[in-house]
Amino acid sequence: MSELRLNIISKDWVIIASDRAKRPEDFKKEKQIEVVPAYQDNCPFCLGNENVFPNIETSCIEKDGIWRVKSIYNKYPALSPDKNPARAFDGLENLIEGFGVHEVVIEHPRHDLTIALMPDDDVLNILKVYVDRYRFLKKMDGIEAITIFKNQGLAAGASQKHPHSQIVATPIVPPQTRTRLDNAVRYFDTTGKCVFCHMLASELKGAKRIVKETEKFVSFVPFAAAAPFIIWIFPKRHMPSFADIDCVELVDMVNILKDALLRLYHGLDNPDFNYTIRSVPVNENGQAYFHWYLAIVPRIAQPAGFELGSGIFINTTIPEDCAKFLRQAQ
Amino acid sequence: MSELRLNIISKDWVIIASDRAKRPEDFKKEKQIEVVPAYQDNCPFCLGNENVFPNIETSCIEKDGIWRVKSIYNKYPALSPDKNPARAFDGLENLIEGFGVHEVVIEHPRHDLTIALMPDDDVLNILKVYVDRYRFLKKMDGIEAITIFKNQGLAAGASQKHPHSQIVATPIVPPQTRTRLDNAVRYFDTTGKCVFCHMLASELKGAKRIVKETEKFVSFVPFAAAAPFIIWIFPKRHMPSFADIDCVELVDMVNILKDALLRLYHGLDNPDFNYTIRSVPVNENGQAYFHWYLAIVPRIAQPAGFELGSGIFINTTIPEDCAKFLRQAQ
Repeated sequence: MSELRLNIISKDWVIIASDRAKRPEDFKKEKQIEVVPAYQDNCPFCLGNENVFPNIETSCIEKDGIWRVKSIYNKYPALSPDKNPARAFDGLENLIEGFGVHEVVIEHPRHDLTIALMPDDDVLNILKVYVDRYRFLKKMDGIEAITIFKNQGLAAGASQKHPHSQIVATPIVPPQTRTRLDNAVRYFDTTGKCVFCHMLASELKGAKRIVKETEKFVSFVPFAAAAPFIIWIFPKRHMPSFADIDCVELVDMVNILKDALLRLYHGLDNPDFNYTIRSVPVNENGQAYFHWYLAIVPRIAQPAGFELGSGIFINTTIPEDCAKFLRQAQ
Repeated sequence: MSELRLNIISKDWVIIASDRAKRPEDFKKEKQIEVVPAYQDNCPFCLGNENVFPNIETSCIEKDGIWRVKSIYNKYPALSPDKNPARAFDGLENLIEGFGVHEVVIEHPRHDLTIALMPDDDVLNILKVYVDRYRFLKKMDGIEAITIFKNQGLAAGASQKHPHSQIVATPIVPPQTRTRLDNAVRYFDTTGKCVFCHMLASELKGAKRIVKETEKFVSFVPFAAAAPFIIWIFPKRHMPSFADIDCVELVDMVNILKDALLRLYHGLDNPDFNYTIRSVPVNENGQAYFHWYLAIVPRIAQPAGFELGSGIFINTTIPEDCAKFLRQAQ
């Protein structure tokens, strides 16, 4: 099979080229036995190394006097809050000083854990810190958008092994976010519907690409997945911003996130991956149109010149097959 | 230094985060001595293996009865011409059968060469095949755009070591091309200028980011380069489509392309890279607005979750420094 599918959210076309391809099983990593220690003395994030690698904390959740998860200023920030967010506009050369906030969320005291294998309480703490920092940073003057993301493994761009995620608050709306919001507004203008709610209802009805449904969330492989085993997690309740999540949803988000990551962990032997929480820009209301979601992208296929030069991605797996494979992987 | 720069062609913002960074020299690959043979018996593209790995040729340039460069149908095509280009539109699920053309350009009979090191005549033959196939494919019914690109090295997504490039003709306008054309039209509506011509004049005047100027072309590091050592090659004459190139320009394109690739080869120790020829969609005129160019992207930085989830790239080098480094590398 070879077909082009349109991602209705981003309006990107994807080539599903499964003639060239591989069965889902073929994407399993070659087993490499790598023993990761629970503590490493040269790790800046490990419990016990706080005095050797001092950090500026922005939030912390403790239990029995010991931190369980915390957020800190990134020591090598891409953006920092002491700059000026004003835009210098000069026709061809438009720039802004590197204003913004760049934080790291240290997800766990232990060096060797990954979210898929963490106790539920620990994952809930991570999500709590995400929401707290999101709500705090969205009130800052000059901030237009907040991107929460995770890099796990070298292929995903991680420079530290210790489990961590990152939060970047930018003085601009990211182009991907602007495109998705524009498309959602147009979809609403045409159909009177939130495109995300509409897609979710359609996915649940078709049931071909569903990975898991919980009380408050659904995970599925998108119709036009740009790469093998991409998983989207949509909240069932319509809400534009991640800041709108309530306590019951936050608890249930632990279930759906762990479930998705555990299926990748077992099904593909702990692949490198990224995830991102895609939320409405902080100064947009977007109430009727936008719907936040979390996107997981395993880094098991390498984009080449065609992808870089066109924006059209070639996916060598069939999304329906990937979903079936993930439903069976536990 | 940390600043955000706007790519005026794509309207993407890039974070230039050189605080985190590296000097240009730090991007040199660790020297690995890899001896590539001039001929390999299991290579489907090597001279002499034509009967073992039969291919369907679409064009060929010979010298003394031996082929020097040829284009063939890709044996594992992402798209093929026997499908139907009609779009099936169904609200949420829009698709097209895998219609299109996917060719491979075998750049040289020898297995161990790279364009940077090839004789000028051989490179001219490659460019001739690019233009011939471009002009041929643009007349096919149902084709909307043609992407010519090259993957060199594993990190660039190459599956064959033998020097080759690829041509993909698609039944859709790639989203990146559509965005660039839209932006160029708006720039023209505002300023009455081709944004590419305007940028070229400004780069030549400023001279901060120029790598090389030849009679018909200019290579430079873009102001808002999304990754280290990206090089753009612009033709000086305004022309929207790569099909418009004339013979004198084609000959001079050999000089500018070899020059750019040789600077990367020496300066960064033969890095993996992609290049793409970005041209106007084949059914657009774009006469006043668009301007084809070639973009080279060395694959020496790994995009992570922030890039994937926002579309904002973090470049840990300063484009002006990269240009200076490349000017000195020969």
